[in-house]
Amino acid sequence: MTPANPDFETRTRDSFARQTFMETIGICITRVAPGMFDTQMDFAHAYQQQHGFLHGGVVSTGLDSVCGFCALTLVAADAGVLTVENKTSFLAPANGQSFRFEGRVIKPGRTLIFCQAKAFAIMADAEKLCATMTSTVMCVEGREDVKG
Amino acid sequence: MTPANPDFETRTRDSFARQTFMETIGICITRVAPGMFDTQMDFAHAYQQQHGFLHGGVVSTGLDSVCGFCALTLVAADAGVLTVENKTSFLAPANGQSFRFEGRVIKPGRTLIFCQAKAFAIMADAEKLCATMTSTVMCVEGREDVKG
Amino acid sequence: MTPANPDFETRTRDSFARQTFMETIGICITRVAPGMFDTQMDFAHAYQQQHGFLHGGVVSTGLDSVCGFCALTLVAADAGVLTVENKTSFLAPANGQSFRFEGRVIKPGRTLIFCQAKAFAIMADAEKLCATMTSTVMCVEGREDVKG
Amino acid sequence: MTPANPDFETRTRDSFARQTFMETIGICITRVAPGMFDTQMDFAHAYQQQHGFLHGGVVSTGLDSVCGFCALTLVAADAGVLTVENKTSFLAPANGQSFRFEGRVIKPGRTLIFCQAKAFAIMADAEKLCATMTSTVMCVEGREDVKG
Repeated sequence: MTPANPDFETRTRDSFARQTFMETIGICITRVAPGMFDTQMDFAHAYQQQHGFLHGGVVSTGLDSVCGFCALTLVAADAGVLTVENKTSFLAPANGQSFRFEGRVIKPGRTLIFCQAKAFAIMADAEKLCATMTSTVMCVEGREDVKG
Repeated sequence: MTPANPDFETRTRDSFARQTFMETIGICITRVAPGMFDTQMDFAHAYQQQHGFLHGGVVSTGLDSVCGFCALTLVAADAGVLTVENKTSFLAPANGQSFRFEGRVIKPGRTLIFCQAKAFAIMADAEKLCATMTSTVMCVEGREDVKG
Repeated sequence: MTPANPDFETRTRDSFARQTFMETIGICITRVAPGMFDTQMDFAHAYQQQHGFLHGGVVSTGLDSVCGFCALTLVAADAGVLTVENKTSFLAPANGQSFRFEGRVIKPGRTLIFCQAKAFAIMADAEKLCATMTSTVMCVEGREDVKG
Repeated sequence: MTPANPDFETRTRDSFARQTFMETIGICITRVAPGMFDTQMDFAHAYQQQHGFLHGGVVSTGLDSVCGFCALTLVAADAGVLTVENKTSFLAPANGQSFRFEGRVIKPGRTLIFCQAKAFAIMADAEKLCATMTSTVMCVEGREDVKG
């Protein structure tokens, strides 16, 4: 996959830095490549659901974010991306000391970019696939409120 | 819809109180009824994505939570619920001063409970439907790690 | 909802008539209105899955078709529609003598049109909601292979 | 993945043979293995949508079927499977002389089996991924109407 913007890495990292919610829940970048974007986060009591696992909403957040940013690696410098829709399958309880999220572009397009993502729960160096996402991301050009 | 647990309201509120992530992002309950669960939250800079809208992950979190808890209103006192999967359609950018989430059970079942939810963005007293979710929730009995 | 094409009904019916698969499985139109499209079909042995119910793929076909055509009622005369993605929730086994499908536009847009649909199983005059769909439909202009 | 039923292949083929809709649209089995199920079909005018491509409902049917049957390879001899929900992403128009469907179990479980599937369009010996599905399948035991 060929990024439309040669400076895609800087642009993607800058955009991620403006997603304040990533900082709020401690998600940080581990990989940026054309059509790929990975992150990780540590578990904390503040992010849990009623049984003590990572809240499904945090899992979806991690997955949604890597989908959006792996799409962003491919678009033109003046285009932005918006999530159209996504579906999360929760394969196993999100029980881990830390979590890893992998986003991949499956099919790039001029207007729509299809992405998939995986969430892994890490416990004592073993990791387990706990959720998957499929997402449609829209590439938006010429809109002042959706850029960067 | 008839709750299996006559004390469903207290039980649902207690369970919600254990979802620390709800407190972390300021989501609070506005309605508990059989097969229904509503919440709201205020927008804050800490929850935004790169264009200044509410992060899609927060929208999914609000929707996921009301789906899970509207399902929980119907189950037996010793049963717990887990989200199997959900899909969010982002109809419009989540641009609001506050947000409202409505969860409804569409089809209750012994093992699986089908739910739908809506997210509304509120700006200067006008509200706009900004996202919808469909979700499958599983009722789990007799598991020590999934109760309450 | 205001159709971009005043002659939307004729156009939608003509387009439906070209979906030969609708004739193959006996689905016919029962309603065309702006942002709305309904169909029905009779059950037949040829359409069943292994337990004797209507095959889930036929249910999805009926739902997908009404989503696409309710979107088509709104677009310009020279634009076509394509399904981007859809999700079907199978609330109950599709056990009926006939079936009814209702498609509704939830949020029209210039490029993307969000739709929802319901499938009802009809047995001895009683009908039961057996499946729901949410779908994203794309409006395509200026493509020779996607028009009409 | 270990099938609960050593005679899984015969059982899965027998069950597929009872899905009359598979015969109606000419889908036949090309592979049965633990947690895997593949099929193929030829394109025909009778299966098309308004632009001449394979109808999205047929694509969903092919994907749904391989998801259900790859799940069925793993369950006990007296258990049946039902599709709970599925989502199809239509990556590219289904433009082919024939089509191939691959179903894989991603995460088996006692009650729920998570599956994924791919649809390929084949044209002059070149094949192209045209759609993906994620599906939740339920294993049902002891129900007279859902077995075999």
